[in-house]
Amino acid sequence: MELNTIYGSIQKEIAEIENHLRSITESERTDFPDLYKMLSHVLIGGKLIRPTLTLLAGKFYSYDLAKLLPMATATELFHLATLVHDDTIDKSDVRRWRQTVNKIWGEDKAILLGDYLFAKAGEFAAATGNIQVVKLFAQTLETISQGELSQSFDAFNLEQTREDYIKRISKKTAALFSLATESGAILSQAPEKSIEILKECGYNLGIAFQIIDDVLDFISTEEEMGKPVGSDLAQGTLTLPAMLLLEHYPEDNPVKRLFLKRGKKENIKQAIELVRNSPIIQECYKVASDFSAKARHNLNLLPDNTSRQALIELTNYVVTRQR
Amino acid sequence: MELNTIYGSIQKEIAEIENHLRSITESERTDFPDLYKMLSHVLIGGKLIRPTLTLLAGKFYSYDLAKLLPMATATELFHLATLVHDDTIDKSDVRRWRQTVNKIWGEDKAILLGDYLFAKAGEFAAATGNIQVVKLFAQTLETISQGELSQSFDAFNLEQTREDYIKRISKKTAALFSLATESGAILSQAPEKSIEILKECGYNLGIAFQIIDDVLDFISTEEEMGKPVGSDLAQGTLTLPAMLLLEHYPEDNPVKRLFLKRGKKENIKQAIELVRNSPIIQECYKVASDFSAKARHNLNLLPDNTSRQALIELTNYVVTRQR
Repeated sequence: MELNTIYGSIQKEIAEIENHLRSITESERTDFPDLYKMLSHVLIGGKLIRPTLTLLAGKFYSYDLAKLLPMATATELFHLATLVHDDTIDKSDVRRWRQTVNKIWGEDKAILLGDYLFAKAGEFAAATGNIQVVKLFAQTLETISQGELSQSFDAFNLEQTREDYIKRISKKTAALFSLATESGAILSQAPEKSIEILKECGYNLGIAFQIIDDVLDFISTEEEMGKPVGSDLAQGTLTLPAMLLLEHYPEDNPVKRLFLKRGKKENIKQAIELVRNSPIIQECYKVASDFSAKARHNLNLLPDNTSRQALIELTNYVVTRQR
Repeated sequence: MELNTIYGSIQKEIAEIENHLRSITESERTDFPDLYKMLSHVLIGGKLIRPTLTLLAGKFYSYDLAKLLPMATATELFHLATLVHDDTIDKSDVRRWRQTVNKIWGEDKAILLGDYLFAKAGEFAAATGNIQVVKLFAQTLETISQGELSQSFDAFNLEQTREDYIKRISKKTAALFSLATESGAILSQAPEKSIEILKECGYNLGIAFQIIDDVLDFISTEEEMGKPVGSDLAQGTLTLPAMLLLEHYPEDNPVKRLFLKRGKKENIKQAIELVRNSPIIQECYKVASDFSAKARHNLNLLPDNTSRQALIELTNYVVTRQR
């Protein structure tokens, strides 16, 4: 499943969003060359999944690109802002095969660049002229910050349930996916019922997407991902594969040893080995696929058109993607 | 000049804002006790100058407290979010006579709490239902982030002019002051001309306020300020007093030595001594008073009422305050 085929019907709009991102960068070129460099570094190379969701969700009813495009751009800027802050928090050195902002420019400037990107995202959201969408935007930032905070407070805590896990990824990932689809639906005057369906569809896609993200952190490679693998464990973040590992091996367990601070590197290596050579990966794919199926079920309730086709393809993409 | 007298006509509204801040804190008490503790720590004890500006600027014309109060609350939350991020960036340990969020909970959680507060601020701004105000809100966050970034890039740079300084504090401080007054004016359906005047008034107050802030960092004490003094120099931030010191003593100069990384503590101490025993403080007060006078001039163009009286008192307060 390639993203290119999903982009098919919205190629022109995606190019417009890339233009928006380029103009933000260019707007600082002469007045603030240092900021220009930071923006050049950070605003390119994304998969643009969230804007794709806004555009596709926005094309079921009577859409107006003058509102849909700014909102789609807002969701990408929002996402990039969270990445910049997350990398700073995690002290990550590499993302998308390149050094992170915090690695190159330091944590202080990374915090401020993140704030700048939140602001830009807010400006694009406000450019829709739709106060309901702006409210959702702000609420989503609140939800994501809560999710990230609870992840941070729960670092190296072994007493977490699957419910806690789903709750956390709902907040830190699915919230933005559902903002992307819901805002697209609202801006195209979708009926109340369809707004609800598209919001739920975004939510389910987001959960599936994050579970696969957490799986890839165990089974992929740095070359493939463009960032180090095993990083969740290193941060003390208990994701689904690690939880299942604890369930499968309740006694002597590398995750347990790691979380009790007994040997970092060797335990991460062992945990990855164990997960790879167990049915855990299949189990995780099963959970993710269930959410992806729910998203497909949501879509079945909507009128059939090219957007629905592309979104159905996306439900496959999120659980088959290699990075 | 006491803030209490300025609050006179808006006592009830100020109490409402304090209630808003309390409810935000309370809303997390059961679901997220750790966040509740952080909010309890950070949402109290502010001087509430920005909400005061919104309320006073909003009471010249046909005001609606259902819009004015959320916006006033938004400006305070916005301010608090920037403080949390600034302290994290500066690695400050103390603020308002207490340990900072980053000192108590670590930088990672401080970054996220700042994001959470920006979100809450955005939600309150959006609660006005006024898209123009929301746009200004987002633009102001962009401006402030730019200002803080340029301060960060210019750290320990001796080649800065007074113009650079005014430009920087316009962005990092005056922008939020003028958002506070402008949004109050917009929300009370002030005529275009009056909106412009109140916006400018906020801007001038903000510049005066920041210059005094920068002076107090030289002449006050930690006991008085509730945070360490000399911190601007320690961060390599060239403020007006330091600039004047460079002008007065162009040859051998502690600021020069400090910025060229030759001895930190002794040079900061020497710079503070030199500034205190020179006419530099008077010069700075003169510059600040000129901006305060401009703000008064702005106010003279508006109808006379208790709000105008209070704002005129504020123009005195900003240049006479001891902390």
